Amino acid sequence: MTAHMPLQARRRFATAEIIAVGSELLTPFRSDTNSLFLTARLNELGIRVRHKTIVGDDGPDLAAAVQAALGRVDLVVTSGGLGPTEDDLTRETVAELLGLKLVEQSFIVESLEARFAATGRTMPCNNRRQALVPSGAVLLDNPRGTAPGLWLDIGDQVLVLLPGPPRELEPMFEGLSRDRLAERVSQERLYRRVLRVAGLGESHVEEKVAPIYSRWFDQDPAVDTTVLASPGLVELHLSTRATPSAATEALDGLTQELADLLGDKLVSTDGRSLSEVVGELLRQNDLRVAVGESCTGGLVTAGLVDVPGSSLYVEAGVVAYSNEQKQSLLGVVPEILQTYGAVSEEVALAMAEGVRCLTGAELGVGVTGVAGPSGGGEAKPVGTVCLGVVGPGAAEVAKTVCLPGDRGMVRQQSTQTALNLLRLALLGRVD
Amino acid sequence: MTAHMPLQARRRFATAEIIAVGSELLTPFRSDTNSLFLTARLNELGIRVRHKTIVGDDGPDLAAAVQAALGRVDLVVTSGGLGPTEDDLTRETVAELLGLKLVEQSFIVESLEARFAATGRTMPCNNRRQALVPSGAVLLDNPRGTAPGLWLDIGDQVLVLLPGPPRELEPMFEGLSRDRLAERVSQERLYRRVLRVAGLGESHVEEKVAPIYSRWFDQDPAVDTTVLASPGLVELHLSTRATPSAATEALDGLTQELADLLGDKLVSTDGRSLSEVVGELLRQNDLRVAVGESCTGGLVTAGLVDVPGSSLYVEAGVVAYSNEQKQSLLGVVPEILQTYGAVSEEVALAMAEGVRCLTGAELGVGVTGVAGPSGGGEAKPVGTVCLGVVGPGAAEVAKTVCLPGDRGMVRQQSTQTALNLLRLALLGRVD
Repeated sequence: MTAHMPLQARRRFATAEIIAVGSELLTPFRSDTNSLFLTARLNELGIRVRHKTIVGDDGPDLAAAVQAALGRVDLVVTSGGLGPTEDDLTRETVAELLGLKLVEQSFIVESLEARFAATGRTMPCNNRRQALVPSGAVLLDNPRGTAPGLWLDIGDQVLVLLPGPPRELEPMFEGLSRDRLAERVSQERLYRRVLRVAGLGESHVEEKVAPIYSRWFDQDPAVDTTVLASPGLVELHLSTRATPSAATEALDGLTQELADLLGDKLVSTDGRSLSEVVGELLRQNDLRVAVGESCTGGLVTAGLVDVPGSSLYVEAGVVAYSNEQKQSLLGVVPEILQTYGAVSEEVALAMAEGVRCLTGAELGVGVTGVAGPSGGGEAKPVGTVCLGVVGPGAAEVAKTVCLPGDRGMVRQQSTQTALNLLRLALLGRVD
Repeated sequence: MTAHMPLQARRRFATAEIIAVGSELLTPFRSDTNSLFLTARLNELGIRVRHKTIVGDDGPDLAAAVQAALGRVDLVVTSGGLGPTEDDLTRETVAELLGLKLVEQSFIVESLEARFAATGRTMPCNNRRQALVPSGAVLLDNPRGTAPGLWLDIGDQVLVLLPGPPRELEPMFEGLSRDRLAERVSQERLYRRVLRVAGLGESHVEEKVAPIYSRWFDQDPAVDTTVLASPGLVELHLSTRATPSAATEALDGLTQELADLLGDKLVSTDGRSLSEVVGELLRQNDLRVAVGESCTGGLVTAGLVDVPGSSLYVEAGVVAYSNEQKQSLLGVVPEILQTYGAVSEEVALAMAEGVRCLTGAELGVGVTGVAGPSGGGEAKPVGTVCLGVVGPGAAEVAKTVCLPGDRGMVRQQSTQTALNLLRLALLGRVD
């Protein structure tokens, strides 16, 4: 019957609730990551997630959660509890709550048996439970697993039951977003853009960009901006709910204003990472780079190598932790180490030049610092990191930063700072 | 009044619910990590987390969540919404829900003003809201922020309101666990132990250990075992709810059985990482190591350097990505590269020996492989990684593995495999 209801009469989905089912999600070891994926997809469709709930493998708790959710949102999505074991209660609980009969679908039993037969196994009896379908439910195909998903129309609301494993849930929901869900949302969608900024702390970025983005928040369509920080990098997440053309115009407008303001602090406006941007600059200029590292212990090289195809422009990396290795591997002369100390711009530049000569790369990067927890002094406290980039024709830039946080934080921020210094050197813009 | 109630009469806490408050937790970018910390601490006290809820900065939604939680658990903990801005609604919402008057505490206003004055600023008016306290609430000191936490006795149940930032929430809750909460739980606590296993996949570990741990699940006290996998490493999380001595006896017993079974696959029984275990073995044997890497791009060296104090035993690392660099930096002779190919045990050993000679370290590690997505062939598909360790007296071990997953997964697993091969070499146990 529902299938024949005219489109206009059906409720358009504006709000959703996500219910994650599984006792493992109530331990200290697992968090519900499916909801982040689901939220991203729902937001793209213009659906706001109003509430999230996590319950164990517990029938009454799940029933209460579903009932409460149906009392406040248009669309309820559950993940998990569709498997073959006794713990998996979602199907039964929902059928009982909604007063629906569970019917075994013989074609599902056959397809389950065929799946097992294909790998030479007999299907355990338990798996038959996965063929039970609440009457009136629409089956959602699961090519990557045994449990089909279920779509239940409840008046003009909808309850979708998805399997828990991300590799099964994600393609199933992608499919729904394209067809059944797309039919139930308005023309307006949520559009996002991610801008990456390097070389400025979170609060500095916030201070600089707030006067601009706050103006856009009051426009039509409104653009919402969130400032998110990770060690050594700040992200600006722009989003707007609008028709495609209005969204593009608004996001382009705000991006342009931010780009003008941020200048070379802006790494990318399309979500590319610092490593990817640096890689492209190296490729465009047909240059190869080598890295000499101390406190970062290989992370700068690993960051560059993170990008597929990086063998085209990463020549080599050398981790020289001790003064002896800085001398013997990278050819840093003892006088520089003695005069300026291991953590100095002079040594960073000498390491960069050393690794450049050693490997024959056109560009050399050097990083030396105090990552902590010990090793800091009054003049060079923990977090002091010196960086240098040496290029063709003896062009060179050096920089000293003082980074907050623990050993891991200092090393991660140092890595981003080194990649950014390399980016600026490649752009020919270094202060 | 409540404070004078005799201990015996008060409900002992067995179950808890965690409510995270904040609209940012309903976006695709932020997940509620506080609840993992809180769950760990609550479990240690023998309190089971029955339910988790995430609501936005929305009064009615928060009120409904708190009310529902008080209907099913002994202890309700909220995080977030105690800040000074208009969005921060937890205090007001809870006071209204419970019919409690909000009273401004002048000593909090003074301490807030003093905090601002200390950094030369004047307190914005908004911050006065943080001095509002529901009548009857116990204040929880917040040395790391401006918002005090609140403890509310509601009959024999308790509602605790905590600030959202982890650096404020965590010490505040640690304090509660030691005093106010500790008084309200039974003698039995949850005790945990983490065993780390390397060199065996998740399903192999599961298959091996299941017959043992399932027996312990039926004993008194029952020991629960969870198998968790990360790239290249498997963790066994043992937990039991018992008195201290019974817990120690049970965990020791199961650990011993698992240790006998797993032999040298067992990395640690006290949660130490592979890098830490390797570091200790190197220190004990007064040996230093150097690493020659290709596909891992610096991650093996970075893994070793991860541990504070690693400068004592990490000599250096060299990332030689191209065949030319393997020859010029690590002295791998062209004939070996031609005869066996860049991804071969022969080349891995030559890289290990090369970096050992180059740096003067006693031990050398070499890693070469196809991380993908391209570069794989029929004989050596993506995921093929060869590893070698060369030690004093020309002792050497080599190994080839074929690892599943994408580029990032292959590189992470390769890193763990290399560290594990080094561990086994140091133990003198290599097959």
